[in-house]
Amino acid sequence: MSKRNKALVVFSGGQDSTTCLFWAKQKFAEVEALSFDYGQKHRLELELAAKIANDAQVPFQVLKLDLLGQITNNALTTPGMDVEAEKPDNSPPNTLVEGRNMLFLTYAAIYAKSKGIHHLVTGVGQADYSGYPDCRDEFIRSLNQTLNLSMDFAYEIHTPLMWRSKEEVWHLSDELGVFDLVRTKTLTCYNGIVGDGCGNCPACKLRRNGLESYLAKRP
Amino acid sequence: MSKRNKALVVFSGGQDSTTCLFWAKQKFAEVEALSFDYGQKHRLELELAAKIANDAQVPFQVLKLDLLGQITNNALTTPGMDVEAEKPDNSPPNTLVEGRNMLFLTYAAIYAKSKGIHHLVTGVGQADYSGYPDCRDEFIRSLNQTLNLSMDFAYEIHTPLMWRSKEEVWHLSDELGVFDLVRTKTLTCYNGIVGDGCGNCPACKLRRNGLESYLAKRP
Repeated sequence: MSKRNKALVVFSGGQDSTTCLFWAKQKFAEVEALSFDYGQKHRLELELAAKIANDAQVPFQVLKLDLLGQITNNALTTPGMDVEAEKPDNSPPNTLVEGRNMLFLTYAAIYAKSKGIHHLVTGVGQADYSGYPDCRDEFIRSLNQTLNLSMDFAYEIHTPLMWRSKEEVWHLSDELGVFDLVRTKTLTCYNGIVGDGCGNCPACKLRRNGLESYLAKRP
Repeated sequence: MSKRNKALVVFSGGQDSTTCLFWAKQKFAEVEALSFDYGQKHRLELELAAKIANDAQVPFQVLKLDLLGQITNNALTTPGMDVEAEKPDNSPPNTLVEGRNMLFLTYAAIYAKSKGIHHLVTGVGQADYSGYPDCRDEFIRSLNQTLNLSMDFAYEIHTPLMWRSKEEVWHLSDELGVFDLVRTKTLTCYNGIVGDGCGNCPACKLRRNGLESYLAKRP
């Protein structure tokens, strides 16, 4: 089997990356999943990710990335800092972890090259843009080129959700046959509640609004 | 004082980054130095870096980056793997740490943004190209753009040594008044010997050849 037909999915166990995991399983002959332990408060995230990967029969690896929490200040890793319910202005939310996607994808690329894997898959998207600059398409395209130059290796970063709204992400999971799994087993909630979540944090609202729109149209 | 006149130097305590540190001190009103502990065998490197930064009266910080050594295989971090004296072919030397400069500069950028610093300085160069893709100008330019997009922040990466041969780097250190300091207090040698080094490893040969060329012309 050609190494060109193997993909590494950057995987958090949330709705988006879980949908990407099953998307990748349909598209590539071999798939692996990679998570990061960057000191996130919700340790459950990594347990759920391991469980979903196991159910999907996908090799799963966690890389420990202590440093990120030490040099940034944000509500996902800083003890005592709460998630803002709404953005006070146009500034990014306090759940932004500066440089996170760039670091995750760079480590994923280094790890992938060591295994001869060229395809990287990430669940970032800008259809429901939440103020994270490192979810934008122009960032991913620039990063792809930089990674290739950095390691003289032909990476291809896939972003199947880039232009899909949350409603369309639910639709995709349904097409992939994992709608129920994604709905009940993934963690998106900033307050660490699995499945439909707390319902009040920005991540839950986005997820629920998309779900309701999709359910209203579901055949 | 404008924050725009402050720079962060990625600093290893070697000839190149030490020359860059003093270059930056001449160019910017405020300078800080950042080193990485990535499990390098020669722990002396970090001690020397601290000492040089202290002598230069530059604030100095070490970030601990365990993960890099764990996911790559190279002669600088892998116990029992020796540095190849000469490259067997056109492939990169086994002292290549995949993705190292990309990670260092990404962490440096995250750290710099948290302090409002826009200018990053690195000693990479391609005049004496040693087979490291992440020392090339096209990589640095691409990375600069990717970092700016990643964090929506106007970074400027400075590479004062990009097109300088080792001879010209010696010349620059002399112009900056730190020729003797660089010659006696920096560590470039892959075998961990300070100053003129072991004389046999590829890094020593490059350094010495440049030094001899420069000394032959020095006024």
